[in-house]
Amino acid sequence: MKYYAIIVAGGSGSRMGSEIPKQFLQVAGKPVLMHTIEAFYYSDFRPGILLVLPSGHHDYWSRLCMQAGFTVPVTLVAGGEQRFHSVKNALETITEESVIAIHDAVRPVISNKIISNTFRIAEEGGNAIVAIPSKDSIRQVNADGHSVALDRKNIFLVQTPQTFRSGILKAAYTQAFSPEFTDDASVVEKSGIAINLVEGDPDNLKITFPGDLLIAEWLLAKKNPAQAPDSIISIPG
Amino acid sequence: MKYYAIIVAGGSGSRMGSEIPKQFLQVAGKPVLMHTIEAFYYSDFRPGILLVLPSGHHDYWSRLCMQAGFTVPVTLVAGGEQRFHSVKNALETITEESVIAIHDAVRPVISNKIISNTFRIAEEGGNAIVAIPSKDSIRQVNADGHSVALDRKNIFLVQTPQTFRSGILKAAYTQAFSPEFTDDASVVEKSGIAINLVEGDPDNLKITFPGDLLIAEWLLAKKNPAQAPDSIISIPG
Repeated sequence: MKYYAIIVAGGSGSRMGSEIPKQFLQVAGKPVLMHTIEAFYYSDFRPGILLVLPSGHHDYWSRLCMQAGFTVPVTLVAGGEQRFHSVKNALETITEESVIAIHDAVRPVISNKIISNTFRIAEEGGNAIVAIPSKDSIRQVNADGHSVALDRKNIFLVQTPQTFRSGILKAAYTQAFSPEFTDDASVVEKSGIAINLVEGDPDNLKITFPGDLLIAEWLLAKKNPAQAPDSIISIPG
Repeated sequence: MKYYAIIVAGGSGSRMGSEIPKQFLQVAGKPVLMHTIEAFYYSDFRPGILLVLPSGHHDYWSRLCMQAGFTVPVTLVAGGEQRFHSVKNALETITEESVIAIHDAVRPVISNKIISNTFRIAEEGGNAIVAIPSKDSIRQVNADGHSVALDRKNIFLVQTPQTFRSGILKAAYTQAFSPEFTDDASVVEKSGIAINLVEGDPDNLKITFPGDLLIAEWLLAKKNPAQAPDSIISIPG
């Protein structure tokens, strides 16, 4: 079986207080995106890497790779209008039967264990979507404007990777785009396939706000102790 | 009108990789809990502070305060078996009509703006619960074991403070404990009161995992620039 990872980097970075899209920000010595790509490339299933970036970012990315001496082989794909279209563009380049993991470029702290779990479970069961329980209480606002508590035990926050057998995924992506497609699981679910949740990791954070870079730095240092940052957390004695 | 803040610190700290409960860990120069108390004490409504700690921690807390020269006046209350019982113990010490904010001790990065909003809205409308939209997709696992996507637009992650007029809150806490009481809003809702969500802040994080201390350090430094940590996030040029 052949394995692929589609790394999707469509974000404009507008929430970062920075003109630079989040995936290009430096963390633990290199751009976020290089950590993400390496996590997949060196994972047990050694997937082929498809990187979806807006066309306007392709040259910038190539320059970053040259500067950093980053030589992991990556197939660049042009991003689309929405995330849906970006993934669809990447899928069009995959012709053989395979298992395909789709992952947010801005989740660099992803472990080999989780990547490998999703490839294995998706290969057997068709799909594997990583998710974690919520540490906060959850409320749903209904049509009357009032909110009701949902049972937190049954609620999961969906992360990536979201991994699928190619046939299921490609069939789902023949559907017309809908604004309710907030992730790949929702696209596949809409095509009539039941979604399998698998255990994610709170460390697999999505870099969204500026403070997230610092936590990513800390978590990547924990994964790779040689890159530990200088910050000290002091513990009272 | 009189205002109170009940700061609840029941956690055992077992997830922190540390024997020390999270609220006592040092961040930006002092224990988490001192930041939390100061945020309320110096907020516009100048609430009276009730601090709920397990009885076994009262001496430790007093020593910490002496060491740090921490002199904010705080009424210590003994914690109960569950968070519900801890809050109930604190409520028993409040006799006058008032507006009461209940807040997690381990959310030190809370702004005056949000604290004041909840006091104002609760005083007018009976209750005000801060909540933020989810940045992740959300799935609900149903009785058949399958998960379905919920519409993320309608889903909110509940934070604290959760602020109530004293009459409503005290009436709700006469109910028998139920395991479904995951927060104060769920207790009050069960008593038949509709819950008002008000806009929270992603920075108002709950310190749960070790990396959360680092992000709290960064966020507290942003609030108080004189306490900035040394860590540098580098931005590619």
